[in-house]
Amino acid sequence: MTQIEHTEITPDGAVLTARWTGGETRRFHALWLRDNALDEATRAPGNGQRLVTLQDIPRDTGITAAETMGDAIRITFEPEGKTVDFPANWLMANAYDTGSTTISGWLAENSETWDSALPAPVFDYSEVKADGAKQRDWLAAVRRYGFAKLSGGPVEDGALEKVVDAFGYVRETNYGKWFEVRSEINPTNLAYTGLGLQAHTDNPYRDPTPTLQILYCLENSAEGGENQVVDGFRAAEKLREQSPRSFDLLSTYCARFAYDGGGVSLQSRRPMIELAPDGELVAVRFNNRSAAPITDVPFDDMADYYAAYREFSDIISDPSMEVAFKLAPGESFIVDNTRVLHARAGFSSGGSRWLQGCYADKDGLLSTLRVLEAEHGSA
Amino acid sequence: MTQIEHTEITPDGAVLTARWTGGETRRFHALWLRDNALDEATRAPGNGQRLVTLQDIPRDTGITAAETMGDAIRITFEPEGKTVDFPANWLMANAYDTGSTTISGWLAENSETWDSALPAPVFDYSEVKADGAKQRDWLAAVRRYGFAKLSGGPVEDGALEKVVDAFGYVRETNYGKWFEVRSEINPTNLAYTGLGLQAHTDNPYRDPTPTLQILYCLENSAEGGENQVVDGFRAAEKLREQSPRSFDLLSTYCARFAYDGGGVSLQSRRPMIELAPDGELVAVRFNNRSAAPITDVPFDDMADYYAAYREFSDIISDPSMEVAFKLAPGESFIVDNTRVLHARAGFSSGGSRWLQGCYADKDGLLSTLRVLEAEHGSA
Repeated sequence: MTQIEHTEITPDGAVLTARWTGGETRRFHALWLRDNALDEATRAPGNGQRLVTLQDIPRDTGITAAETMGDAIRITFEPEGKTVDFPANWLMANAYDTGSTTISGWLAENSETWDSALPAPVFDYSEVKADGAKQRDWLAAVRRYGFAKLSGGPVEDGALEKVVDAFGYVRETNYGKWFEVRSEINPTNLAYTGLGLQAHTDNPYRDPTPTLQILYCLENSAEGGENQVVDGFRAAEKLREQSPRSFDLLSTYCARFAYDGGGVSLQSRRPMIELAPDGELVAVRFNNRSAAPITDVPFDDMADYYAAYREFSDIISDPSMEVAFKLAPGESFIVDNTRVLHARAGFSSGGSRWLQGCYADKDGLLSTLRVLEAEHGSA
Repeated sequence: MTQIEHTEITPDGAVLTARWTGGETRRFHALWLRDNALDEATRAPGNGQRLVTLQDIPRDTGITAAETMGDAIRITFEPEGKTVDFPANWLMANAYDTGSTTISGWLAENSETWDSALPAPVFDYSEVKADGAKQRDWLAAVRRYGFAKLSGGPVEDGALEKVVDAFGYVRETNYGKWFEVRSEINPTNLAYTGLGLQAHTDNPYRDPTPTLQILYCLENSAEGGENQVVDGFRAAEKLREQSPRSFDLLSTYCARFAYDGGGVSLQSRRPMIELAPDGELVAVRFNNRSAAPITDVPFDDMADYYAAYREFSDIISDPSMEVAFKLAPGESFIVDNTRVLHARAGFSSGGSRWLQGCYADKDGLLSTLRVLEAEHGSA
């Protein structure tokens, strides 16, 4: 049980210092506390939406009293004369006075990078459809590794939609709600040939990029055609270790991607390694086929940028980075398309290979996962 | 007609300098030129996808010859012994040796910020459906202003889907393919009440955020309920003018957004003002209702961060920033939800107000626009 045993208010009422049982201390600004008040006049019961704007909160808001009330503290704000209870564990969970420092390219929690040593996370289609705890584990693997396989699914046209139904919604694009990945006579995309494809993220020329991709196997008797996946976040970490300057170049300058054909003209301008402004590693984009001329790197940095691009490409193509498997009919996999690259070996024209692919987004997957965790406990 | 009249190669073959008729000079690295070669062995005819990876291009690639050939130059690369023609106008269009410097928060081309003085761009539903040039103008207005109205559409359930069909695809979410915006007895969202709503971007708690929103009017006899739109990019520019430090705070630290209710738990961590790593202003997120506690700002910057947040909120709420209109049945508007905020005045329970809303993405809209521009000329 988290309790606050002591509070102190600065003379001007602008800052509250709270000391928890055990000795931990955190400071909070009066305005922050007032803005995040949990009472029903500030937050709508049910959906928790804030009912006030910042303009409704007096600029000179201060704290005049803070009183320990069991597991909460009761705070009085002036000039509103408003009294609000804050649970001690809510305050600790949301404290920002943590003094933590971070490296450029830090990982979000519940993420773990991997290489070829990772045993591919595999789940059973019927189990994740029937059992909320299994469904949670499956989605948690996607959150942690950016990748998970599913086996034992139905072998029928469009079955991949049922996979997406288990967590979210298909993102329809010019390729349709889903698309057929097989050899075609007049392919509009190299994906629809028997050629091998270097590890890549899909559709970097799209902004926003689809954040999830599902590839679902219906036939696979052709020789070759194995799928490989590579953790782009691990590749970025390796690049940073080998050459911080190369990591900085790929994250500081935008690359460009483009796809023209089949009645569309898609273009984007985004870095190959995307960081949040505070350095969180949020996305990798890598695709030799759709990389457009890079025109946003100054002349003086271009030679080094190309060296960094090659270094990153070498890491991505290193077999020690890849997890490989050959899908059987009814098997599929999800990749976090902002993180995990996928590749495929070339395949012969004998036999047949038929996959279907579609896109979806992470917001729905993570939401479903949080709801399942609330019900079944954390993964 | 663009022509190159003189070329020079550095002794090591690493850099080509080209001088155009008229005197302009640009430098290109041999590796960049080789990677962007336009021949059929490098780029697939038809879709232009690159057929080689960086590993296929020798690390020590150099230029041994460059010869002017009318409107193109013919370049020979060693050690491949490969000869490729580059049109002079392609080289100028893709040159990166421009020495340009930019301010933090620069705008993409074809964007123009606005305030209440903007005459709302209005287009006719039937015209944009029937005439490619009109359709181009409509989509170009969305690209330029992040906002356009459409009048004269059908007054029927789901008509908004036909608007989206004119450029792309609906992004389905937990709110459905589309959602009903009207007063409800037990609303899961404040949007489904008669309350006024401060100008906001929709669903900042979703990552990726829907990049377009369509609001379509089917009934509007209630008193009040006017829509207002505000250019978030202009608001960011004003903030930067008033206080560069405030602009930096909102673009350097991540805010958090959350929505819990109706069986979902959506969360995001993104800055209110999002810049590309080279300073392009790419997105604004602002929503008092779904702003979660901000926990990624260090204690020492939190007071200033809140002051910046209030300053930004004040700018956004300033009537001189807003364009207001009341939709009639069959009228709708699109906003670029990464840029333009929308608000609504409260409305009475007498009469009826029924809007439908949906989300879509900019990639499809911009692609359709480029295809139309290729056919009908630039907007």
